[in-house]
Amino acid sequence: MSSNSTGKLFTVTTFGESHGPAIGCVVDGCPPGLAIAEEEFRMDLDRRATGRSRHTSQRKEADEVEILSGVYEGSTTGTPIALLIRNTDQRSKDYGDIAQTFRPGHADYTYWQKYGIRDPRGGGRSSARETTMRVAAAVIAKKWLAERHGVRIRGYLARLGEVAPQGFDWDAVERNPFFWPHEPQVQQLEKYMDALRKSGDSVGARVNVEAEGVPPGWGEPIYGKLDGDLAAALMSINAVKGVEIGDGFEVVTQHGSQHRDEMHMDGFTSNHAGGILGGISTGQVVRASIALKPTSSILIPGHSVNLAGEPVEVVTKGRHDPCVGIRATPIAEAMMALVLMDHALRHRAQCGDVGEIKPRLP
Amino acid sequence: MSSNSTGKLFTVTTFGESHGPAIGCVVDGCPPGLAIAEEEFRMDLDRRATGRSRHTSQRKEADEVEILSGVYEGSTTGTPIALLIRNTDQRSKDYGDIAQTFRPGHADYTYWQKYGIRDPRGGGRSSARETTMRVAAAVIAKKWLAERHGVRIRGYLARLGEVAPQGFDWDAVERNPFFWPHEPQVQQLEKYMDALRKSGDSVGARVNVEAEGVPPGWGEPIYGKLDGDLAAALMSINAVKGVEIGDGFEVVTQHGSQHRDEMHMDGFTSNHAGGILGGISTGQVVRASIALKPTSSILIPGHSVNLAGEPVEVVTKGRHDPCVGIRATPIAEAMMALVLMDHALRHRAQCGDVGEIKPRLP
Amino acid sequence: MSSNSTGKLFTVTTFGESHGPAIGCVVDGCPPGLAIAEEEFRMDLDRRATGRSRHTSQRKEADEVEILSGVYEGSTTGTPIALLIRNTDQRSKDYGDIAQTFRPGHADYTYWQKYGIRDPRGGGRSSARETTMRVAAAVIAKKWLAERHGVRIRGYLARLGEVAPQGFDWDAVERNPFFWPHEPQVQQLEKYMDALRKSGDSVGARVNVEAEGVPPGWGEPIYGKLDGDLAAALMSINAVKGVEIGDGFEVVTQHGSQHRDEMHMDGFTSNHAGGILGGISTGQVVRASIALKPTSSILIPGHSVNLAGEPVEVVTKGRHDPCVGIRATPIAEAMMALVLMDHALRHRAQCGDVGEIKPRLP
Amino acid sequence: MSSNSTGKLFTVTTFGESHGPAIGCVVDGCPPGLAIAEEEFRMDLDRRATGRSRHTSQRKEADEVEILSGVYEGSTTGTPIALLIRNTDQRSKDYGDIAQTFRPGHADYTYWQKYGIRDPRGGGRSSARETTMRVAAAVIAKKWLAERHGVRIRGYLARLGEVAPQGFDWDAVERNPFFWPHEPQVQQLEKYMDALRKSGDSVGARVNVEAEGVPPGWGEPIYGKLDGDLAAALMSINAVKGVEIGDGFEVVTQHGSQHRDEMHMDGFTSNHAGGILGGISTGQVVRASIALKPTSSILIPGHSVNLAGEPVEVVTKGRHDPCVGIRATPIAEAMMALVLMDHALRHRAQCGDVGEIKPRLP
Repeated sequence: MSSNSTGKLFTVTTFGESHGPAIGCVVDGCPPGLAIAEEEFRMDLDRRATGRSRHTSQRKEADEVEILSGVYEGSTTGTPIALLIRNTDQRSKDYGDIAQTFRPGHADYTYWQKYGIRDPRGGGRSSARETTMRVAAAVIAKKWLAERHGVRIRGYLARLGEVAPQGFDWDAVERNPFFWPHEPQVQQLEKYMDALRKSGDSVGARVNVEAEGVPPGWGEPIYGKLDGDLAAALMSINAVKGVEIGDGFEVVTQHGSQHRDEMHMDGFTSNHAGGILGGISTGQVVRASIALKPTSSILIPGHSVNLAGEPVEVVTKGRHDPCVGIRATPIAEAMMALVLMDHALRHRAQCGDVGEIKPRLP
Repeated sequence: MSSNSTGKLFTVTTFGESHGPAIGCVVDGCPPGLAIAEEEFRMDLDRRATGRSRHTSQRKEADEVEILSGVYEGSTTGTPIALLIRNTDQRSKDYGDIAQTFRPGHADYTYWQKYGIRDPRGGGRSSARETTMRVAAAVIAKKWLAERHGVRIRGYLARLGEVAPQGFDWDAVERNPFFWPHEPQVQQLEKYMDALRKSGDSVGARVNVEAEGVPPGWGEPIYGKLDGDLAAALMSINAVKGVEIGDGFEVVTQHGSQHRDEMHMDGFTSNHAGGILGGISTGQVVRASIALKPTSSILIPGHSVNLAGEPVEVVTKGRHDPCVGIRATPIAEAMMALVLMDHALRHRAQCGDVGEIKPRLP
Repeated sequence: MSSNSTGKLFTVTTFGESHGPAIGCVVDGCPPGLAIAEEEFRMDLDRRATGRSRHTSQRKEADEVEILSGVYEGSTTGTPIALLIRNTDQRSKDYGDIAQTFRPGHADYTYWQKYGIRDPRGGGRSSARETTMRVAAAVIAKKWLAERHGVRIRGYLARLGEVAPQGFDWDAVERNPFFWPHEPQVQQLEKYMDALRKSGDSVGARVNVEAEGVPPGWGEPIYGKLDGDLAAALMSINAVKGVEIGDGFEVVTQHGSQHRDEMHMDGFTSNHAGGILGGISTGQVVRASIALKPTSSILIPGHSVNLAGEPVEVVTKGRHDPCVGIRATPIAEAMMALVLMDHALRHRAQCGDVGEIKPRLP
Repeated sequence: MSSNSTGKLFTVTTFGESHGPAIGCVVDGCPPGLAIAEEEFRMDLDRRATGRSRHTSQRKEADEVEILSGVYEGSTTGTPIALLIRNTDQRSKDYGDIAQTFRPGHADYTYWQKYGIRDPRGGGRSSARETTMRVAAAVIAKKWLAERHGVRIRGYLARLGEVAPQGFDWDAVERNPFFWPHEPQVQQLEKYMDALRKSGDSVGARVNVEAEGVPPGWGEPIYGKLDGDLAAALMSINAVKGVEIGDGFEVVTQHGSQHRDEMHMDGFTSNHAGGILGGISTGQVVRASIALKPTSSILIPGHSVNLAGEPVEVVTKGRHDPCVGIRATPIAEAMMALVLMDHALRHRAQCGDVGEIKPRLP
């Protein structure tokens, strides 16, 4: 199976480099009969897009999705859906001087060590530009999950460097460029980011993502666990260095009597587990968190070496996000959607849509 | 692909329930010509085994590995290697009363919701007994990685509830039943565990695991990243709720100038990334951490419901670990070994053993 | 994915050598709730077994199946089902002298060229003994297909060397050791085989296999076509050199006006296609044929070389089938069952059990 | 894994409908450092192209390949290579009247039964137009196989209806529009096809394909056999109803003493096996044959039903091949190339490029 594919039954294969002619994906396994139009990709792509505010990269991409296959008269047909986005705002010259140099903290060195060759323009395949196609593919998954199962997936920025939300309101999240859940802090964040950008440095972040409406029973023991697949999917996002399900690393100091989610006749009384037990969904909200490292593309000079093995000092110009975590919210949602979609199909493959399985409890 | 299989080229398929007749695995894709004998499984299985000290489950299993195939005259032949361990210390009667009840914090409820049927004896397939076979399969992987690439994988308990190591010595780790890296604290841990067991409660833990000697270039963009596969593999271990690579969640508050690992002519000067950039190994030590929840099998009564939907109080008797994290060290090592082995083979498939790729550094 | 596994969702992994301690398989993805007992494997294993008549190998294996996992109180649970059969009638000494020699027409040479090592006892992994586990796994598939969809799979010997059936009666097939559809010819076949065995030679055969009751819609474009998967599955049977679907090679000289299956209001009027169009089942009988080569294990001396590269003359003693095609009938049925089972699950994954798809015909 | 993908390590995913905006593919797993340019796709695409002579479909497609990713400065980089071809000569109106009708012998009915919806324009996804991308992807595989292993893959038309070649000359094959190996017969074939086209009917064909230079050792037991994978790959070609390896169905009447390929010190003395024993290449020429049915798109009216279940008479206008087998030669070569490429990588994954395995014989 292609290493640029994800999902066993709802399989998304992405391709494309940051500054190549185009990026795209092939979505295979989508059930037939789902209405989908090119306009529907707009919203999530805009949420992910660079250039949305002065706090993210200023690269301006139209991100116009062309549906090349798999949709007939506005409806999916069951055949592979290819989506294509032309790159329009390449500036390869920004990257000319790094072709001979390994930027510290970047994949330059590892791609070169692996392949003996690399596309240096904007990081090539290792650029977060690739995540555009994840978001696009997930538009299809999100729609099917919502229509068929009432699943709703959403995320927010849970930490911007050392700044934590002082309150929580889902409605606030989409009203500011930070996906921040507490509006009164937005101005503070603006100042924080302005200062950061001025300093030429970057900072890390935490993103929380969750899914409501997931029925119990999705996920497969042992190596196809829902949390295992979520971990792989979320860790595959650029810059992610940690993944948590439910209480995550807080469980280290918890006691069993405190952590276990008890049940009453009307359901669970808590959700420390994050909606997954034994790798299978409980019917509660599925909760995950990710830690994103500060981008290594900063204006502060760093030590590195060049292809000749000589020491060099690297300053990464170009158009970069001082906090890549900000735009990671829709990407994290996308990865959760892709994993859930895949498991929805896997579950009905083994256990049927309806009847083989008839558990008696809510 | 089977959901009970892991690895694309070094593929391990496990089977078996906690209290069924046997557990086993099939290891496919092992290179031919590796010497392997049944005795070689002993050490790591003993490290993982229950009953090693009074601080873990008192179930006594001989864990005798029988090699059923794939080895001829002491050497692997390239055909699938089947390993079998008979269960000998089943006590199904311990579990008779939970067949009608969902233990809080366990997979009882989710298996039943998914399949409409479950093997209640000791958690059936969801039991950590399954991890025995991961450790067994990894014995093969560890040996090949060591012989062929000089890779060495080892782990330790990095947090037992709120207790953190006050010092660090690799040599200490194998000299105490906690895999604890600081010997002077062992007595304290004994007392801590005795008190915990007495209270009928359990506690979480953190395990660190690392691999030395991994050459640069292992891992595949984008959905076969080394860290993505590690995340899936580690999250699939029972009770794990969080996975970190390198600095993990600490990156949230780091700045780029602090996080990025700079390079000099003789290599990297730090390893915040945990030996992986862009999903590909850097040649540094590969570092990962996991958070393990406190087991839900405790003597303190908990609220739940039974199959009839009635409220019940559950006390989990049987033989359980008050801290499942203790025995997780060899399991975490095993999962890292399986992932690295798979990527070693994947790398040489695409990039060749020798010549296609000749990077010049370092 | 393991090369010793077959099936995407109903995944069967086999292991074991002809003269190793045991052979076995792991069946993953079986729906829960299917009643299955060890006795149910008896009939098909007996049909495949050696020693059934004097016309097949005289190796006597009890072929007692032990269910190691995945079945609880007589019902599948959705977890992997491991089946084990101990080898009991090994005679490794029969093969001592071929360890240094490559038998012509056998896999001895290719295994050795690939792996640099081989298990010479009875062909090791390349022996048809492995097909025992395919038949065992298919017992589960056949039962589910029959219970859930009314699918019935059966085969017969359609050519024994130059001898063709002079009549056809399904009932006759199971009443003679040749799976021959015309009883009056059975005595003739006995004589044919006796003479063949006496001559120390072997002969080829053709087996036809078909499935009734397959609903329309199973199979996936483009590389998961039902006929493509059948071709792979049937070609993977030892000694098979050709596979046909429907009219097979007869289509070469057919005209379109003759080949195409026309439709009337009550269905198709012919079945040249063999029940598959565009890789997807039509609802008609699915028909396939295979050609099996004459076994190369014969008493007539043949030229070959040994490990030292010297010329040798090889006479293959041991217990061999003069026509391996005879016992291939249940194996061909098994492979068809495994492929159909897999596609049954794949179809409901993408298209649902019930409602997403509601074609109106017929 | 996507059903529109083929290959485990050299993975080709195709997309696109006959009359959609474009067709394309993603090639993942290609080794880095292979020189490849857009012009190199020209020759094989021309060989496959429609409109090459009056004996094939008159659809004129430019088939201009655009490389969207995975190639940097003329060299593969190890990342996925996306290839795109815009459809330019769509004539959807040709197909307007069949949207309500199931053409006999076509996938119309089965796609509709499976998905409840279908793209009727030119057969949509089931059209042989998809094979364009197989040929394109195989250009890459062929080049790598030739450069690295000296493998040469070629095919020819071995039967056009009842007409068989009366002589054989590889050089002739590329000098006539039939891929016919005996030039003196070409005029006869022209007449044969003219008469056929005039009659409004079509005819079947047989194509032979072979690979020279395949080293011994490619192919994996048991379900990843080289012949099993070839069977799947070749059967997946539109209109193929039979696949043979080596002597194919002729083995049915052969005796073992006749079929087995004996060995002398300088190699094999015959090649009945078609270069594969036990699923693994012997080092001889790998030989396969396919049977292609006569296209069902003919001008002779046929009985069918429409979406309302009413009887209709169908005449398939549009631009069709009276013998689809003619253009199948480059497609069969392509599928053999893709399978061999995949197994080349799989072999070095398990057995290494060089050293683990050192068999001593030629």
